[in-house]
Formats: sequence, C-alpha cells, structure tokens
Amino acid sequence: MVTIDDVKKAAEVLSGVARRTDLIHSPAFSTNGDIYLKTENLQLTGSFKLRGAYNKIASLTDEEKAKGLIACSAGNHAQGVAYAASQCGAKSVICMPASAPISKVENTKALGAEAVLVPGAYDDAHDEADRLQQEHGYTMILPFDDPYVIAGQGTIGLEIMEQLPDADAVIAPIGGGGLLAGIATAVKAINPACKVYGVQAEGANAMYQSFRKGTKVATDTVATFADGIAVKNPGDLTYEIIKEKVDDIVTVSEDEIAAAILALIEKQKLIAEGAGATPVAAALFDKIPTGGRKTVCVISGGNIDVNRLSRVISRGLIMNDRMVTLTVEMDDSQGRMMDACRIISECGGNILEIKHNRNTRGVALSSCLVSFELETRDAAQAELLLSRMAEAGYNPKFEE
Amino acid sequence: MVTIDDVKKAAEVLSGVARRTDLIHSPAFSTNGDIYLKTENLQLTGSFKLRGAYNKIASLTDEEKAKGLIACSAGNHAQGVAYAASQCGAKSVICMPASAPISKVENTKALGAEAVLVPGAYDDAHDEADRLQQEHGYTMILPFDDPYVIAGQGTIGLEIMEQLPDADAVIAPIGGGGLLAGIATAVKAINPACKVYGVQAEGANAMYQSFRKGTKVATDTVATFADGIAVKNPGDLTYEIIKEKVDDIVTVSEDEIAAAILALIEKQKLIAEGAGATPVAAALFDKIPTGGRKTVCVISGGNIDVNRLSRVISRGLIMNDRMVTLTVEMDDSQGRMMDACRIISECGGNILEIKHNRNTRGVALSSCLVSFELETRDAAQAELLLSRMAEAGYNPKFEE
Repeated sequence: MVTIDDVKKAAEVLSGVARRTDLIHSPAFSTNGDIYLKTENLQLTGSFKLRGAYNKIASLTDEEKAKGLIACSAGNHAQGVAYAASQCGAKSVICMPASAPISKVENTKALGAEAVLVPGAYDDAHDEADRLQQEHGYTMILPFDDPYVIAGQGTIGLEIMEQLPDADAVIAPIGGGGLLAGIATAVKAINPACKVYGVQAEGANAMYQSFRKGTKVATDTVATFADGIAVKNPGDLTYEIIKEKVDDIVTVSEDEIAAAILALIEKQKLIAEGAGATPVAAALFDKIPTGGRKTVCVISGGNIDVNRLSRVISRGLIMNDRMVTLTVEMDDSQGRMMDACRIISECGGNILEIKHNRNTRGVALSSCLVSFELETRDAAQAELLLSRMAEAGYNPKFEE
Repeated sequence: MVTIDDVKKAAEVLSGVARRTDLIHSPAFSTNGDIYLKTENLQLTGSFKLRGAYNKIASLTDEEKAKGLIACSAGNHAQGVAYAASQCGAKSVICMPASAPISKVENTKALGAEAVLVPGAYDDAHDEADRLQQEHGYTMILPFDDPYVIAGQGTIGLEIMEQLPDADAVIAPIGGGGLLAGIATAVKAINPACKVYGVQAEGANAMYQSFRKGTKVATDTVATFADGIAVKNPGDLTYEIIKEKVDDIVTVSEDEIAAAILALIEKQKLIAEGAGATPVAAALFDKIPTGGRKTVCVISGGNIDVNRLSRVISRGLIMNDRMVTLTVEMDDSQGRMMDACRIISECGGNILEIKHNRNTRGVALSSCLVSFELETRDAAQAELLLSRMAEAGYNPKFEE
C-alpha cells in the first residue's frame, strides 16, 4: 500500500517542480452546496501526470536514470514522463500509437522525449515499449499502477487539505485509478470524515464495475471521447486502495461530460479535457450529493484537441437548447424564405447556417426542405419558434 | 491623480472580496524571455472590473448607497457593478443596449442588478442612464474615469509586484484606460525600472493615438471584436496618468488577437476574451520586446460568447495553416472523388466538410467545383496537398 508519509515525501520531491495549482471557489456552480475547483488543467504539461512521473523518476538510481526511461502513452502520461525525465536529466523514450494526434506527438518531443510511433492500436505500442525496455534495459514508467506514481498524484489531495481544511468531499476522475488512489490516501489520512468519490465515463467503467462487484474486472472495449480515462484494465494496487478508501464511484454520460466542458468554459473560463470535466459533470448532474457541503472537483487536465473542442461546444449548446436545427418544408413561391426568416427574427433566433434539400423522397417537386441551424436562448424560445413556424404552414420539426 | 496609497487602501477594501488571482509562468510562451500570465479572467464575474467598481461603491456614504447606483455597460462593467453593489448591500440599475447578448443580460441580473434594456446603440443606453440618475438621485459608477475605480484596478499591479518582485515589464489592455492607469500607478511606485506597456486593438486605438500625439483624442468609430476595449473616447484622468507613467502603447490586429486566444486555449487551458488576449498577442507577435526579460501579460477577462469563440478558434486555426479550404475542379467521371480523398489521406489531411458547386460560371457543364475543408498540420502539409492535387489534374487552389 501507499501511506500518507509516502505522499508527504512526494510533496517534498515535487516542491519547485510541480505547480501548486490554485483551488478556485465557483459561485456559478455553487447553487446547492459550495463547489471548488482544483485546477490541475493549469498544471505544467496541462495535466496532473507529471506529479507521479516525476516522483517515480526521482526515486530511481543514477544508473537507472543513465540507462534511460520508457513509457507507453498517447496522451498526458507521455507529456508528464517527458517533462519529468528532462527535469531529472534522464533520457526518455515514449511509444505512441501512430494514430496519436500530431499535437500530442509534437508536445511530447518538445518536452525532450524521443517519440516512437508504433503502427496499430494502443496495445501494439505497449508491446513495443516492453520490447524496447528489454532490449535497452530502460526503466518502465507505469501510468498508474506504481506506489511512487500513486504517491505523486496524492500530493493533490495534500494540497486540497491545506487549501480547504474543512472540505466535505473530493471528486476525482478514474482511468487506471492512480489519481484517485493517491488523493484518497492523502485525504482519508488527514480527514477521515471527508468523502472521496470517483467518476468514470459510462463507456469506460472498469473500476466502477470492480468497485460494485468487489473484485477487479477489466472491460473488452472502451467507448468515450474522454481519452484520458479510456482504460480497459485498472491497476491492481490502485484497485486495492480505492476499494478500501473510496466512498463511492459513479458514472457520467458523454453528453454530461460535454455539458460540463461547456459550463467550465462559460462560467469558469477554464479548458478541461473530457476526463478533467467528469467531476464537474457528476456534481452538476447530481450523481453525487453536494447540497450543503463543500465539494472539491479535481479538474485533472485540459489537453483537448481544439477541433474536438469545437464539436464539444456545439454538442453542449445543443444539450442546453441553445443551438437547434429546424427543418421546414418550403414551396417555391415568392417570399417564403423571407417570411421564414422574419419569423425567426421575431422570435429572437439567430441564423448560423441555411441548407436546402430539393431531392428528399416524399417532398413535392415544387417544394424543398430547408434546414436552419439556429442560435437560441433556451428551450422555451426553441418551442416558440416551432409553433410559430407551424402556424405559418411550414410543417417544421427539430432535427435530432 | 491617483497615488500608491490610494491603491494600497483599495487593496485593503478589496481584501476578502476580489480573488487574488494566480500569476502563472508560461513555459510554452517563454521561447524568448519569460512570460507570466496574471489571470484576471479567473476573477469573480470573469473580469477585473469588480475591483474598481467595488472600491468605488465602498467609498460612498450610506445615504448614497441607499439611494442606489447606476451604470451603463453591455459587458464586464455591468457584471462588476452588479456584483459589487450586491456585496455592499446596495441596489444597482444597469442600462444596457437592447442588442446586448442575452447571456450578459442574464448574468447581470443573476448578480442582483436591475437591467434596463435601452433600444438603440451604446450612446442611447448612456443617455438613458444619465436621465435615470437625475430622476432618481442614483450615484453613477463610471467604468474607468474615476480615481476610486483606477485605484481598484491598480490592486492588480500591487499583486503582480508581490507575486513577481523582479518583473521587468507588465502589459495590459486599454479601452478607457482605467486598468492600465491603475497598474502603472502601482508598478511605477514600487519599481520604477519595471516597464509598463498598453495594448489596443488596431480598430479601437484612441488612447494609442492620444499617446502618440500628446493630446487626448477620441475616434468616431470602433471596429474590433474585442468588445471589452471598443472605446471611442478614453478617460481624461486615465489619459493624464498613462501619458505620465506608461512606457509605450502598441496595437494588435484582429487576426493576432484571434491567434492569441487560440494559443491561450491550447497552451494554457485558459479562456480569454478578445481584450484579455491582447497582451499575449503583443508578446507573441513581437510588438513589445520580451527577450531576456520577465514579462507579465494581464489577461483582463474571459467573457467571450461561445459561438464567437468557435469562430475565433476556426480563424486561429486558419491563421496557423491548420485548417484550409482547398477547392478543386472535378469532372463527373467515376472514381475522381475517391482519388481526391486518397490524395488527402496520403498527405495526412483530415476532411471536415465537403461542398459541391455545380453552377459556377466558367466551369464545364460536366464538371463541378468541390471544396474540401481540411484539418492540416502546418503550412508545409497544406502546400504538399496543393501540389499533389495539381499533379493529379485537379486544378486546386486555396480559398482565401
């Protein structure tokens, strides 16, 4: 197991290396209880991962460091190891799936690592890392199932207990479980009354299942855009710690994660990646009781591809009825488009895009379907638009 | 004038009200000198404005507070006054142009103010505020040209001097000039060697012109998406302070602001509004010398509409050659689309959208123009795509 002393030692090791990230009270999210955000998305490398990686690498002998380090990751662990190795003056080799986003490969290289792009899936990159480790005598830096890594992530729990000693609950995401195991170790040692919760994506819920069943299980597949927690097989050590110390584990849907990302952008001006937004999703969608309590949501990282971010923003707007696509039937007589635009304008909608479709089965030859992508204020405004269009004979419907 | 003692008094007044926002070192932006970010986008209400508003309102007599406060704003000042008034237990009325974004109106109301929507432009809302003030005996809370407001904003400079005593330069945006005048007052009093720079948008450069000419001028129009600094007529008091204490004022273009917003999202996980990103734009695009120095960029706010944010992200990607629209001519023979998609795939491009246009003049009847909206890595990859398409006879060109 990992002890509070291990975490305290890690905090000393990390002093001057990892940022002591701000704990921000969020009035906007505190409609029920008080919500605080531990902003590890503002950590160096954009996620908490360097804490564990650095604590592990600093524990190695000079000989081990001289031989070099290896890791396998397409994401935050890659950047964490690369940064930590550079800080320790060690060479690092990171095996990444060849399909990894260019930006993550470039960032990993920029932090001083050698990136080995391996054709195939994550498992292939993992096999290649094992092979290279044996061939060159590198030390493998595991992403979560290692006591030094867990103790490093635990420093976040230590900081939270210093920043908000009377916290009633801490919520953190779970992929392999290193972050939550570390935080639970620190928090429960300092204040056993403080609840510790984990969150998983519905489509990547191995630790949730394990926790429910009381025995560690792996899943065959993962399906979530929160790539930072898309883990099939949780850690053994992390599972044991979580089983003992964590109060509950919940899951959140993809749409709930998207809505949480949007809420963090609009209300808190913070970019969270999918994994990093899951604690806020759990709080906002009442998966965890927060009423009358001081609850800390750990925003674990912010490394989200900007193109994906654009799609997430759109999805979040649709979830909140602030963007709707209204399809209407329009015959080719004069003034019909103008009239439809007038109705939209009168209802306060804002047109983002108009598409014509003249070739749909079941629509009269002299008619066409016109889709309006609209910015709206809320569901009430969208419904008003629908009914006004219906009154005017446009046979409108919302696209799902 | 405003003195350092006024700023220090404001800091006491604001203690426990305004957040002491984090000063974050940015390794990603520190390619030349060291760049630090003063994160006032993480301030309560999403911008620095509550500092000045609260300091002003706290200076009023109980009688003045009981009569109520009035302000005119479509943006951050509205929320700052609303929040500060509520904290002081005073009623506030905010005149806003009826065209103000719904989200800003709703936020202002949610913070406890009465929002009066005035048909017409900003000037009409301003006239209505004057009228209501006289009718009801409200106290007007000015957005920048008031010594208490300036002293309140100056507390940012005080915090910077405490957080980074050996800062070599501070860069802040200028609309009316309250933020920069306050910061300059604090910084120059504590460390006269520290440079203080202001930034304006090219399309809203009244203070820039005034500084250059040595006499205060107003502009007839403003044209910038950075609505937080879209000010035609700078303050008189702010101009006098800036003229005396500020080292230089520069301007940045709309595209530079968009690129800075995107860089802050990707590299720092922070949402900045247009105004808030201008200091980073000035640093990144070498408008101000940062080499070998410690430079603080004040991210003044993060209140940007998410639909606008989507457009800014797209613009930033286009600026960096990471999103291109490639239009090719395609005859209707079999396999041409497949072949074009193969070339794009081989070059590593990612297709976001395909549009067909069969009705363009000058294109043969059997041909059509096809536009590919593509995600690309960089300019080199985009150029490779262009040349490979040209070799294959597609007559490709980039859309501007």
